[in-house]
Amino acid sequence: MFPYRAPLRDMRFLLDEVLDAPSALSGLFEVDSALLNAVLGEAARVVEGSVAPANGPADREGASLGPKGVTLPRALHEAYAPWREGEWTGLALDPDHGGQGLPRILDMMVTEMACGGGLAFSILPGLTRGAWKAIHAHASEDLKRAWLPRMATGEWTGAMALTEPQAGTDLGLLRTRAEADGDAYRITGAKMFITAADHDLTDNIVHLVLARLPDAPAGTRGISLFLVPKILPDGARNGWSVGALEEKMGLHASPTCLVNYDGALGWLVGAPHRGLPAMFTMMNDERLFVGIQGIGAGEAAVQIAAAYAEERLQGRASGGPARPDLAADPIIAHPDVSRMVQTSRAQTEGGRALAAWLAIQIDRSEMLPPGPDREEAEDLVALLTPVIKAAGTDFGFESCVNAQQVLGGHGYIRDWGLEQWVRDVRVTQIYEGTNGVQAQDLVGRKLPLNGGRAVRRFLNLIRADLPRMDTPFSECVNHLLSLTDRSVETVLGSKDPAAVSEIATDVLRLFAILSHGWLWGLMDAAAARGDEPFHAAKRDTARVFRRRLAPEAETLVNRIALTLEPIT
Amino acid sequence: MFPYRAPLRDMRFLLDEVLDAPSALSGLFEVDSALLNAVLGEAARVVEGSVAPANGPADREGASLGPKGVTLPRALHEAYAPWREGEWTGLALDPDHGGQGLPRILDMMVTEMACGGGLAFSILPGLTRGAWKAIHAHASEDLKRAWLPRMATGEWTGAMALTEPQAGTDLGLLRTRAEADGDAYRITGAKMFITAADHDLTDNIVHLVLARLPDAPAGTRGISLFLVPKILPDGARNGWSVGALEEKMGLHASPTCLVNYDGALGWLVGAPHRGLPAMFTMMNDERLFVGIQGIGAGEAAVQIAAAYAEERLQGRASGGPARPDLAADPIIAHPDVSRMVQTSRAQTEGGRALAAWLAIQIDRSEMLPPGPDREEAEDLVALLTPVIKAAGTDFGFESCVNAQQVLGGHGYIRDWGLEQWVRDVRVTQIYEGTNGVQAQDLVGRKLPLNGGRAVRRFLNLIRADLPRMDTPFSECVNHLLSLTDRSVETVLGSKDPAAVSEIATDVLRLFAILSHGWLWGLMDAAAARGDEPFHAAKRDTARVFRRRLAPEAETLVNRIALTLEPIT
Repeated sequence: MFPYRAPLRDMRFLLDEVLDAPSALSGLFEVDSALLNAVLGEAARVVEGSVAPANGPADREGASLGPKGVTLPRALHEAYAPWREGEWTGLALDPDHGGQGLPRILDMMVTEMACGGGLAFSILPGLTRGAWKAIHAHASEDLKRAWLPRMATGEWTGAMALTEPQAGTDLGLLRTRAEADGDAYRITGAKMFITAADHDLTDNIVHLVLARLPDAPAGTRGISLFLVPKILPDGARNGWSVGALEEKMGLHASPTCLVNYDGALGWLVGAPHRGLPAMFTMMNDERLFVGIQGIGAGEAAVQIAAAYAEERLQGRASGGPARPDLAADPIIAHPDVSRMVQTSRAQTEGGRALAAWLAIQIDRSEMLPPGPDREEAEDLVALLTPVIKAAGTDFGFESCVNAQQVLGGHGYIRDWGLEQWVRDVRVTQIYEGTNGVQAQDLVGRKLPLNGGRAVRRFLNLIRADLPRMDTPFSECVNHLLSLTDRSVETVLGSKDPAAVSEIATDVLRLFAILSHGWLWGLMDAAAARGDEPFHAAKRDTARVFRRRLAPEAETLVNRIALTLEPIT
Repeated sequence: MFPYRAPLRDMRFLLDEVLDAPSALSGLFEVDSALLNAVLGEAARVVEGSVAPANGPADREGASLGPKGVTLPRALHEAYAPWREGEWTGLALDPDHGGQGLPRILDMMVTEMACGGGLAFSILPGLTRGAWKAIHAHASEDLKRAWLPRMATGEWTGAMALTEPQAGTDLGLLRTRAEADGDAYRITGAKMFITAADHDLTDNIVHLVLARLPDAPAGTRGISLFLVPKILPDGARNGWSVGALEEKMGLHASPTCLVNYDGALGWLVGAPHRGLPAMFTMMNDERLFVGIQGIGAGEAAVQIAAAYAEERLQGRASGGPARPDLAADPIIAHPDVSRMVQTSRAQTEGGRALAAWLAIQIDRSEMLPPGPDREEAEDLVALLTPVIKAAGTDFGFESCVNAQQVLGGHGYIRDWGLEQWVRDVRVTQIYEGTNGVQAQDLVGRKLPLNGGRAVRRFLNLIRADLPRMDTPFSECVNHLLSLTDRSVETVLGSKDPAAVSEIATDVLRLFAILSHGWLWGLMDAAAARGDEPFHAAKRDTARVFRRRLAPEAETLVNRIALTLEPIT
């Protein structure tokens, strides 16, 4: 096993050399580069030292269900202790409610480290943060005071209870009901696929549950949101239990629970029947988080593949021996192997850059005074949330599969950890709204919103950055821009919703390629100003983006055109 | 769970309506359509009734290693009994050595069924057939008489022992040694990743082992091939044992063995130091077989996805309700879901058609008298073997992943079987020469062979078929032809072996797209002559090939051009 190392140099490159985060955040936060980097270094220590070593053992031990509820693997307990100690869950949350009030870009990077340390681990703070945000945005002051501080510190965790056997993507079909009981409610119904609904890691767990009030209209406009803890304020165990854990392809250390709510006590969050919009505060946060899971997984996988490819000796490079002193060349000398490693790297580092940039926009969208700047940031966050989720996880899966391929048979067996990464990352394309659902969101809702205002803003932003790029990149990105522009116009002008729905996934991928191309252009230009080996390597990876990933756009626009303007 | 059904209608379509197999094989075999279809029907009965139901239980029980050797899951024993009873392993093997002498196209289709019934099962006859062929082609008459008949009937199985810890792709590094002992040899060394080296399913197991004689030159020209059984002709247990089983991502019912040969008795197959070419008889057969594993897995997966998508009710189709009488539409009505199902179908059925066509060429290459026709068939088989292996398994993996995505969360849990298909099929891209190695074989060896004779024959063959296709397809295939033609010329003209090696995978994929496009063009034309719902559905899938898979070529040629004629 090669140990995970947090990509600190790359993160510093983004913060200082590409995005100039301190300037971009000035007026919103009092932070400088030294502070940002110090926090990242401290997080790396926790993840490298405690979280990452637990990933394999936790998978092998797995979560289990007994008479007293769910038990998490011992390794996960050990990993969580220093995380809670450092209060990393609340890094970027409101200090008035237990958080530490640091910029979101830091949280995004620390979260990526946690994911690179292990996806099963990362879900615990990931869900807690999202639940915290929904409560923070929609609950009464009393509820906020009662529940938020200890969630922010990681003393308690959160969970989201949406899915029912008959209601997955289509939440309008859900049946769990809520009946008033004093100033609270009694929740009754069965929920499935509830991640970390129960565990023995913390003293309490806060569920956000979607249910119907007695007078609720049918469909999605009759759903309300409730806060349903495991332990009630008086210390009593609330009326729900875990009926079963799912047996899954991966994430064995993360319990996926069937939960039976049997008159469980809960409190309304937000207005009656307005539960879905309130839950979307959590869902949007989770979508970004899940995208980061893909990036973290890709980084962990490519680190293993690169280290293996430097060590494993097989054959001679096609251009002549790279290491004539050895019995064979390290396989990284084979262009086909290097291609796989570098492609995974380009996908992962492009995703990291996009997430980091978006994190700045999130802070701007939440902290700027109302006005055109804030509106622009809101537009960009809304537009790119499905892109980060779907592309982050698609690229993450592809990176893990590619990295596994680098190891050959050794990638398929347990020893090197890559088969676990493939099994674990696979679910990120599925949960929190499948990637198909993300594509429908992008094409059906985000593109047409306000007459296409968000997408035009985004394309203009990229266009304005072209002069900052070196020539081959500005040409490449300009080409991607015009392909995307044309496809967007075709989509917005189409009168055939079924055809638009059919190519939604291609449109989302096109946005991902364009977004990555834009940031690779900026990274390439920033690297051209540096003189470390790091900078030269970065330009190599940028070239791989141009030669291997940018050409994907040709297929995508072809498919879009063939479907929206069919020949037959 | 939805039960696996052998795709008999589709196979009949290929045999009778697309390839006219009886005519194509006339002069080589006395078979008519009725006979071919009767055999397929009988095989379907065995696979549907015994093999497929064992797949899930065998995975859960897994293979295990005890003091007496490897034990296979009980379900696999039950699946193998009727298979052996019917002597399906030897369907297309030489009747003089225990086989049944039927055409290879039948064997290809029955093998696909066996794979669709379960990959772990399919490996047993798959390895046996390949070992049989190497012995048949290279061993002495005595060895052939002693070992082949009971392998052909499935009474014994075969295994191939190539890999050593330090020698995977690079067999020149292998160290296992062989020393003469009378007219036999003593084999000593450790081999790893040996599939089904030991099990309790049959009375004997025949290993083909690569080892070095004392006077062997270094590298691949110093390797000899030995037949090393589990039980010696005098009934004694031979001197090898299984040291460990690998813990793998999937194929849990198939034991992947570390084998220690400790002076094990073996017999030379072929000439001394000429073991690698002899082993290639087996390897080429296994490469085709593994490609079929991808197709069988894709078929099994898409059957589950399609059945699930017809049953699962969620949301309303974007063009308006498909089933207003129900609470929601079946998800197959969502264009994005239909896209995934149909894409998997197009990949799988295209692969099946290519494999069926190639099976006819295999018989021609082995049975025609020496001359230009036989030479052409030999060229086509050599050229397309790496394409079938790599594209069959890449498409198979993509199909399984797509099918899993259709099921959402239900695809990630054990219940529906899809997560097992993804875990199991993944190794087909890795073993038997990784798909990267296949691409190097295509681009580095098969394309330049005889000044490009094989590839020009193949392209001319397709060109000659263009008039048989309906217009949109002939245009599509003609376009793919010219893209491929240009890329091949670029590759053959390149003076940069490292760049060629880097884009080898793209070139192989381009060949796959072109080959599938050609056969989809022929299938589309054949379907246009039919009037069953089957034919209309086939044309729908053909359109999906044109709209979604053919456009991949644009990206591929772009990558090839950017790498071989780099801008920077």
